[in-house]
Amino acid sequence: MARIAVVAGDGIGPEVVAQARKVIDAVLPGVEATEYDLGAARYHRTGEVLPDSVLDELAGHDAILLGAVGDPTVPPGVLERGLLLKLRFAFDQYVNLRPSRLWPGVTGPLAAVKPGEVDLVVVREGTEGLYAGAGGSLHRDTPAEVATEESLNTRHGVERVIRDAFARAAARERRKVTLVHKTNVLTHAGSLWARAFAAVAAEHPDVATEYQHVDAAAMFLVTQPQRYDVVVTDNLFGDILTDIAAAVTGGIGLAASGCINPEGRYPSMFEPVHGSAPDIAGRGVADPVAAVLSAALLLDQLGHPQAAARVTAAVATELAGRTPGVPLRTDEVGDRLAGYAVA
Amino acid sequence: MARIAVVAGDGIGPEVVAQARKVIDAVLPGVEATEYDLGAARYHRTGEVLPDSVLDELAGHDAILLGAVGDPTVPPGVLERGLLLKLRFAFDQYVNLRPSRLWPGVTGPLAAVKPGEVDLVVVREGTEGLYAGAGGSLHRDTPAEVATEESLNTRHGVERVIRDAFARAAARERRKVTLVHKTNVLTHAGSLWARAFAAVAAEHPDVATEYQHVDAAAMFLVTQPQRYDVVVTDNLFGDILTDIAAAVTGGIGLAASGCINPEGRYPSMFEPVHGSAPDIAGRGVADPVAAVLSAALLLDQLGHPQAAARVTAAVATELAGRTPGVPLRTDEVGDRLAGYAVA
Ligand SMILES: CC(C)[C@H](C(=O)O)[C@@H](O)C(=O)O
Ligand SMILES: CC(C)[C@H](C(=O)O)[C@@H](O)C(=O)O
Repeated sequence: MARIAVVAGDGIGPEVVAQARKVIDAVLPGVEATEYDLGAARYHRTGEVLPDSVLDELAGHDAILLGAVGDPTVPPGVLERGLLLKLRFAFDQYVNLRPSRLWPGVTGPLAAVKPGEVDLVVVREGTEGLYAGAGGSLHRDTPAEVATEESLNTRHGVERVIRDAFARAAARERRKVTLVHKTNVLTHAGSLWARAFAAVAAEHPDVATEYQHVDAAAMFLVTQPQRYDVVVTDNLFGDILTDIAAAVTGGIGLAASGCINPEGRYPSMFEPVHGSAPDIAGRGVADPVAAVLSAALLLDQLGHPQAAARVTAAVATELAGRTPGVPLRTDEVGDRLAGYAVA
Repeated sequence: MARIAVVAGDGIGPEVVAQARKVIDAVLPGVEATEYDLGAARYHRTGEVLPDSVLDELAGHDAILLGAVGDPTVPPGVLERGLLLKLRFAFDQYVNLRPSRLWPGVTGPLAAVKPGEVDLVVVREGTEGLYAGAGGSLHRDTPAEVATEESLNTRHGVERVIRDAFARAAARERRKVTLVHKTNVLTHAGSLWARAFAAVAAEHPDVATEYQHVDAAAMFLVTQPQRYDVVVTDNLFGDILTDIAAAVTGGIGLAASGCINPEGRYPSMFEPVHGSAPDIAGRGVADPVAAVLSAALLLDQLGHPQAAARVTAAVATELAGRTPGVPLRTDEVGDRLAGYAVA
């Protein structure tokens, strides 16, 4: 039976993760879960972000379920670089999978887009690009200061994530992959991405392809999100595009994310895209849907696609039954979802 | 009297630029205009993109009015790097000014946003960051290939564009500047931007400030574009965010852009954000509004704010009077705009 590590984290993290675990237990009884105390609270208490011993322990699990880490009192970059990105890189989670659907029952911000019309997934590269941490500065705090950030891209890293995107597209109905980059300005990295994309596309004559510059893709995600099926892109572009995709499908409150090591050599990590929301933490009013959808991605990755499908269907039932404006209770939503999932 | 260089360019460029000139002539008779043949057509005919002699001649003008350059037959990067970016860098156009308004009469894609509610301007850095052209690759077309792109940021370059943004905000009604970056991941460049921003903000106690990560800003531009007044950001983030801002205010068909050297040491350049649209070129149906709004930015920069205001008001009249779905004729729109502007 699967062994998962649970990092509930800060703010609303513990509240929403509790519901995700409830739903996992309902559809796949017997999953063994171990809690790890990481995030802003631990950092403030002990000064530690992610001790090597904890990293080693996490490595022994099949997957990690994360709620949210962070707090305005922690300096920018500490938990991002020291925890979230450290896990992505240490566990070679090179596929950052972010599905976006405009669910029936959810009102998106776009007047012309109806529920059910948007169903896309962004496959974001997770271990390279501008996230490599290659940069520095000179003459800090003088008029001569210069700061650099370097985007590092390897054929190895680019090709494997494109391959994953094509495999996912081949298993979907529309079978289309859109490559997003900025080949007209970032000519070196852009050329590498474009050539790797063409090479993998040649192995998939059944999958349709297109290319868009990132600025155009950002625009079309707003005006015509329906046109996308699978989008593959680099780390930073994926960060931006997935938040746009979340915004047009009802907000990051509903968005799930998986940082996946497809080979299963290291644990993959699943987390809602939203943050720790300290302003509403502890009140039992956070929507756990994104955490529960992240649990569905986890189940799918661990080889339980039917359990995953039941969780996703439960979310569809829950959202279709909501009355706009009626406040929700985190634990009641979790109870309902667990119930729908086993019904 | 002002001397402007006109680069009509490719596709619909000549059609829309003709209307912009018509409107300039109406509000500021006597502007001397010299045409320069640059773009895809010249590249195909002669192999030349931007000869040094032409660059020298352009430098002798007060401003450049550009229609659109580009064609699918030109390899990516050739005209972008060789012409557009070359001009931005050669003429030290460090302020890329991109206003977005949801005009009365225009239906944006967002259900909750009404015309008149959005009025923001993005001040995008134009001479640094990932656009510096610092990058390369090794072991091309082998499994060992690596490609880099480097973002270069100087205190000099960052501070001057932030200073420009604050000056613009101080002259606007809401007096607010939002810095957009990704300080939690791009810690070196992010720190430089944040410190320069704080330093300039201290000189402007009358201007409100906020900071957002680029992914959050992309999302809020979709869900709450009304919240922005002046946004200052780096070159690549600005590229992406301005297309989102255009999308939520009716599309890049209405979006104007100025690449400005504020000191006037070199000519500034003004152009619609849209491309050359080869599919509709030559039919006289392209909307010249973005080109005409770019002409308004040009007039303002050359010290004719009243002429600029008349052009902007003419556009407002034109857009408010349009009936959705009724096809337009490029030259008729230009005639109407020229008429409104002098009425
Ligand atoms: C918190 C931050 C490091 C992270 C990222 O930029 O990847 C977040 O924005 C995300 O999208 O998961
Ligand atoms: C054509 C390209 C070089 C340019 C840019 O990236 O700056 C365009 O997208 C723009 O926004 O003006």
